[in-house]
Amino acid sequence: MTDIDVADKVEGADVAALRELLDGRWAHVRRQAREMLRGELFAPVHGLDVEAHRARVAEQLRAIAGTEVPGYGFSSEYGGSDDVGGSVVAFEMLVCDLSLMVKVGVQWGLFGGAVQALGTERHHAAHLRDVMSVELPGCFAMTETGHGSDVQRLRTTAVYDPGTEEFVVHTPDDAARKDYIGNAARDGRMAVVFAQLFSGGQGRGVHALLVPIRDGRGRPTPGVHIEDCGHKAGLNGVDNGRLRFDGVRVPRTALLNRYGDVAADGSYSSPIDSPNRRFFTMLGTLVRGRISVAGGAGTAAKAALAIAVRYGEARRQFGRPGTGEEVRIMDYLAHQRRLLPALAKSYALHFAQEELVSRLHDGWTGEPLDEHGQRELESRAAGLKAVSTWHATDVIQTCREACGGAGYLSENRLPQLKADTDVFTTFEGDNTVLLQLVAKSLLTNYRDEFGSLDTLGMARFVAGQFFETVIERTAARSIIERLVDAAPGRGEGGDLYDRGWQCKLLEDREEHVLEGLARRLRRAGADGVDAFEVFNNAQDHVLRAGRAHVDRVLLEAFVAAVDRCSDPGARALLDQVCDLYVLSTIEADRAWFLEHERLTPARAKAVTSAVNALCRRLRPHARDLVDAFGLDDAWLAAPIALGAEATRQQTQRAAMAETD
Amino acid sequence: MTDIDVADKVEGADVAALRELLDGRWAHVRRQAREMLRGELFAPVHGLDVEAHRARVAEQLRAIAGTEVPGYGFSSEYGGSDDVGGSVVAFEMLVCDLSLMVKVGVQWGLFGGAVQALGTERHHAAHLRDVMSVELPGCFAMTETGHGSDVQRLRTTAVYDPGTEEFVVHTPDDAARKDYIGNAARDGRMAVVFAQLFSGGQGRGVHALLVPIRDGRGRPTPGVHIEDCGHKAGLNGVDNGRLRFDGVRVPRTALLNRYGDVAADGSYSSPIDSPNRRFFTMLGTLVRGRISVAGGAGTAAKAALAIAVRYGEARRQFGRPGTGEEVRIMDYLAHQRRLLPALAKSYALHFAQEELVSRLHDGWTGEPLDEHGQRELESRAAGLKAVSTWHATDVIQTCREACGGAGYLSENRLPQLKADTDVFTTFEGDNTVLLQLVAKSLLTNYRDEFGSLDTLGMARFVAGQFFETVIERTAARSIIERLVDAAPGRGEGGDLYDRGWQCKLLEDREEHVLEGLARRLRRAGADGVDAFEVFNNAQDHVLRAGRAHVDRVLLEAFVAAVDRCSDPGARALLDQVCDLYVLSTIEADRAWFLEHERLTPARAKAVTSAVNALCRRLRPHARDLVDAFGLDDAWLAAPIALGAEATRQQTQRAAMAETD
Repeated sequence: MTDIDVADKVEGADVAALRELLDGRWAHVRRQAREMLRGELFAPVHGLDVEAHRARVAEQLRAIAGTEVPGYGFSSEYGGSDDVGGSVVAFEMLVCDLSLMVKVGVQWGLFGGAVQALGTERHHAAHLRDVMSVELPGCFAMTETGHGSDVQRLRTTAVYDPGTEEFVVHTPDDAARKDYIGNAARDGRMAVVFAQLFSGGQGRGVHALLVPIRDGRGRPTPGVHIEDCGHKAGLNGVDNGRLRFDGVRVPRTALLNRYGDVAADGSYSSPIDSPNRRFFTMLGTLVRGRISVAGGAGTAAKAALAIAVRYGEARRQFGRPGTGEEVRIMDYLAHQRRLLPALAKSYALHFAQEELVSRLHDGWTGEPLDEHGQRELESRAAGLKAVSTWHATDVIQTCREACGGAGYLSENRLPQLKADTDVFTTFEGDNTVLLQLVAKSLLTNYRDEFGSLDTLGMARFVAGQFFETVIERTAARSIIERLVDAAPGRGEGGDLYDRGWQCKLLEDREEHVLEGLARRLRRAGADGVDAFEVFNNAQDHVLRAGRAHVDRVLLEAFVAAVDRCSDPGARALLDQVCDLYVLSTIEADRAWFLEHERLTPARAKAVTSAVNALCRRLRPHARDLVDAFGLDDAWLAAPIALGAEATRQQTQRAAMAETD
Repeated sequence: MTDIDVADKVEGADVAALRELLDGRWAHVRRQAREMLRGELFAPVHGLDVEAHRARVAEQLRAIAGTEVPGYGFSSEYGGSDDVGGSVVAFEMLVCDLSLMVKVGVQWGLFGGAVQALGTERHHAAHLRDVMSVELPGCFAMTETGHGSDVQRLRTTAVYDPGTEEFVVHTPDDAARKDYIGNAARDGRMAVVFAQLFSGGQGRGVHALLVPIRDGRGRPTPGVHIEDCGHKAGLNGVDNGRLRFDGVRVPRTALLNRYGDVAADGSYSSPIDSPNRRFFTMLGTLVRGRISVAGGAGTAAKAALAIAVRYGEARRQFGRPGTGEEVRIMDYLAHQRRLLPALAKSYALHFAQEELVSRLHDGWTGEPLDEHGQRELESRAAGLKAVSTWHATDVIQTCREACGGAGYLSENRLPQLKADTDVFTTFEGDNTVLLQLVAKSLLTNYRDEFGSLDTLGMARFVAGQFFETVIERTAARSIIERLVDAAPGRGEGGDLYDRGWQCKLLEDREEHVLEGLARRLRRAGADGVDAFEVFNNAQDHVLRAGRAHVDRVLLEAFVAAVDRCSDPGARALLDQVCDLYVLSTIEADRAWFLEHERLTPARAKAVTSAVNALCRRLRPHARDLVDAFGLDDAWLAAPIALGAEATRQQTQRAAMAETD
C-alpha cells in the first residue's frame, strides 16, 4: 500500500452508504443521540471521585428526561411513544459515559420496564409519568448476595397479612439482602422488589412488589436499610447499593399483579397455572434488559476499535528495511490480525443486534409473539448478550494493548471503556449461564419445558432431525438456503469465499454439536445415573453448542445485511468484511473442524492464509469501517484518536527530514 | 466428590512441602517479605484519589528503604548485599499494592540499576547509597512519546560542548519528550536520560546521562519541564510524568560512561567498537527490569487465582438435581476449566521464573555470562515477560468473571489487580515486539547479529539442525532427553500422560515452526524482494515461534521442579499439575498439531478428555495449590476470599434447613 497520509483521507461515499446501512431501522434514534449528546454536560470524563461522578450522571439523566428518550419504551397512553426498539437503540448510543448508559437502563429499562411489564393499569397510571420524568427514581431489586444467577431461589419474603391488607417484606439474613442494586445507594425512591410471595400460608413463588425505599427528603423509609456497595472497577457514576427490609409493610396493591394477584382475603390467582411457567413468563417480559446490554457492549467495542484503528493509522514504529521510513503500525500483519477480525465481528454483531431489536419491537408493538417466538427471542437475547459482552471485553483489552502506553492513560478512554464494560459479562445474566440457556432452548426444541439448569428436561429430548425443527425460519433463511444448496459438498475443496460453503460449515457444526450433546444428556434420564454428573461432564459441550449457534446466527444476520445493501461499493466492501468474520470464526475453531474431519489439514491452513489475505485487503478500509459506526468524535474523546498522534508524527517527520 | 466443607479443611503436609518447593532458592526473601509487609501501612487500599495514593506509596517506599530490600540489588561495596536474585524476588512479593511494586522497581531497579550497570565508580560512589536510602529519588527516562519500542530511534539529544566541558541535553519537539516516566511527576530528583550522544560533531548513538530534574526543594531545575501524565487505568500510586529538556547543561562526568565515554576534548571512546553492538550491550545490562515484570505479573495472577479459588469453594449456586442441595461453583466443570489450567500454568511460570532469576543472579555474582549466555538470558527474559504478563491479563480477567458481581467490587481486589497489571503487557517491552525478539534470537542462532526488527539478519540464517544448535543445554535437558528417548514415536498412540511424549511433541512443534519460518524469511535476502513484505507476511509465524519456544521452556522448568521435589505427596500432586499444564497447552494449539499431523483427530479429542479428567482430579486440591503460593491473607484482603462468603453460606443453609 502506498504510504499516503490516511489520517487526512476525505470521507468517501462508501462511509455514508455504510453508515446508512448500519444506522438501519432506528436511524432516527441514532441521529437524535448525535444531536443531543453534545457539549460539556455529555463530554466523557475520567478520574472523578465517586460522589462527583454520581452527581454528574444524575444531572445528565435529568437532562435526558426532558427529551423524547424516556418515552420510547413506554405506552403512548402515558406520554410514551411505544417505540421499544428505539429505547434499546437509545441506550446503546450512550457511549459518552457508560455510567450514564447504565443509569438510564436502570431507571427507564429495568425499573420502569418492570412496572410496565409486571404491573397493571393502577401501577401504570400512578407511576409511569413520574418514572419518565425521573420524579420517581427507582431501583430494580432482584439480585441478592446469595442468589444472582438462580433467581428462583431468592430468599426475600413478602408475606400477606389479611388483617391489614398489607404485604410484609422481609430480609431473613445477609445472604438475602438485595445486592449491586443500581440507583439504590443515592437516588432511588422506590424499588421493584422480587420476593417469595406467601399468602394464605402458602408459598406462591417469586413475585415483584413496589416498595418505597426513601421518603421525599431522601431518608430511608422505616425498616429499610440501605448500604453503599462502595467503589467498583468501573461504572462509579452508578450508585449501586444493598437493601435490607426489616418487616416493611406495603399495601396489597403494591404487588405488580399482572401475572399473579392476591385478593383482600389472601386468596391467590394467576392467569398462568404452572408456577414454574409463571415464573419464567415473568422473567421473559424483562428480556429487553439483556438485549440492551448486548447493544451497549457492542457500542463500547466499536468505540475502542475506532480509537485503536485511528491511532494505528497515525502511529509509526520501526524503520522499513531499505527506505528507513517508519512503518505505520496498522501496516503490520500482527496489528491487523488483532484489530480487523474483531472489527468484522463487531459488524456481524451489529447486524444480529438489529435483527434482535426488530423482533423485540415487533412483538411488543404488533402481533404479540407466540410462545415459540418468545422462547426464540429469549434464547437469542441470551446468546447475543453473552457473545457481545465477551467480545467487548476481549476487543477493548486488545485495543488498549494496541495503543501501548497511550492506551493506558485515562484521557484516551480505553481504560474507562474496559473498566465500565467489565461487568457486562456478569449482569443481566452471567454469560456462562446464558450460553447454557441457549443450548437448553435448542435442545428442548421449544417445548413447554421450563426449569433453570436442571438437565432432566434436556435429556428427555430425543435427538434427530435438529435442523428441521431447531433452526428457526427467518427472513435470511431463504437466502441462506439458496446459497447452501448451490455450495459444494461437505469436505470438498472449492472456494473458501463461497458463502454457501461457509454457511453450510457453520450449520453442520451446530447440528453435529447439538446431536452429540443430546446423546450425552439422554443418559441423565436413566435409572441409577447421577443426573448432575452427566450434565456436569457435558458442560463444555453445552457451552460449545451455545457458541456454535450464535456464530451461525451472526453469519446469517450478516448475509441478510449484505443482501439489503443497495450501494454497490459498500456492498462489495461488506462482502469482504463478512468473509473476514466467517473465516476468522472458522479459523478460531478450526481444531473442531479438523477433529471432525470437516476440514482437511491443507484446507485449514488455507483458511488461515485467507484471513491474512483479507486483513491485507481490508487494511486500507479500516478507517472507513470504523467511521461508518457514526460515533461522534466528542464521544471518542481520546486525543490519540483525534489528531494528537498525527500532528506529532508530522512534526517529527519534518524535524527528521531537516536533520537528514 | 463428597461435599465436605473444604473451606474448613486444615492445611495438610502437602501444602508445606509445596510451599517449600515454590519458595525455592530465595525463600529467605519471601519469608522476609511476609514478615515485613504487614499492618496498616502495607494493607491493600482502593478508591484513593491520585494524590493520596501517591503519598501513601511514597511513605511505603521510605519504610522499605529502612530494610534490607534496597540492598539486594547493589554491591556490598556501597552497603548492598549483592543478591540480585533477591532483588527480583523481593519485587514480585510486593503484591499488597502493585503501585508500590512499580515504584520500588523504578527507584532501585530501573534508576539505581542503570546507575550501577551503565555508570562507573564515580557514579556509584556519589549516588548508590542515596539511591538505596531514597535520599535521591530517581527516574529512568528512556521512552519518548514518539518512540517506545524502537529505542534506537530516540530523539532527545546530548551534545558535548568542549568549551564548558558540558553536555547540552535537549528535547527537539513533543514527539521526543520523555513519556510515562515513573517517579517524574512528583518525587524524582534526578533522571537517567537516554539520548542521542553527539561529540566532535558526530553522532555516537544512544547513551545515558544523569540529569538533575528537581532541586532540593522539589522545584524543577532550570530548563527542565515536567508534566503529569495524569490519571491512568491503574498504578495511580506511581507518579508518571513527562520530561522536556530545554538546552539543559550537565557536566561531562554526568555521562554514564561504562560503555562509552567522552574526553574533555570531545573525543569519544568505547570498549565496544560496533555502535549497534554497544547499544544492545547497554540495553542487555538492563534485562533485570523485564525479568522483574514477569515475576510481578506472576504474583498478581497467583493472587487473583487464590481469591477466585477460595470464593469458588465457598460460593454455591443452583440446586443439584435430586438432592436440591446447592452446588459449590468450583464443582462445575466449566468453572474448573476456567481456573485450573490457568493455575497449572501459573505453576509452570513460577518454576521457569525461578530458573531465569537464578541464571541472572549467577551471571551477576559468579562467572559473568559469555555472549551466548547473555543472549540466551535476554531471549528468555523477553519470552517469559510476554507470556507471563499476558497470562496475568487473561487470568485476572477470568477470575473477576468467576467471582461474578462480587469480583467487580473494589474491596475484593480483582479490579485493582486487573487495572494495575494491564500495562505490564506494554512496559519493559511491548509483548508482541518481545516475542519477535525471541524468534529472532532463536533464528540468528546466537550469532553476533544485532539489529532491532530488521529481517535481513534473520534471513541469513540457513535452516536445518535447529535442535542441535538452537536449543540450549540446561540442567533439565538431561532429564528431558531421557524421557524423550523412552517415549513412543511421533504420531503413535500410547499414553497421553507420558512425559517424554509430551516433551517431544512440544520440541517437535518448536523445531517445525522455526524451520518453516527460516525458509520463509530466507526469501527476504533475494534480489528484488521487499524484505519488509516478506517479514510482515510471516509475522504470525514469527509470533508462533516465540510462543512455541516459551511453551517448551515452561514445560522443561516444570519437569525439573517435579524432579527436585523430595516430598512424595507433593511430587505426585505436582506431577498431575504438570500434566494439566502441558495437556491444556497442547489442547489450546491442537489445531496446529492436527494441521501438521502430529495428532490424529481421535487423539486430539482424547487430549480434551484428559484435560477434563485432570480438572476433576485436581479440583479437591485447588485450595492447597493456591495456598502453597504463600500469599498472606492480608495481601489478598478480599472479604469473599477470607470467609465472608463461607459465613453467609453457613447462615443461609442454617436458615434454609429451619424452613424445610
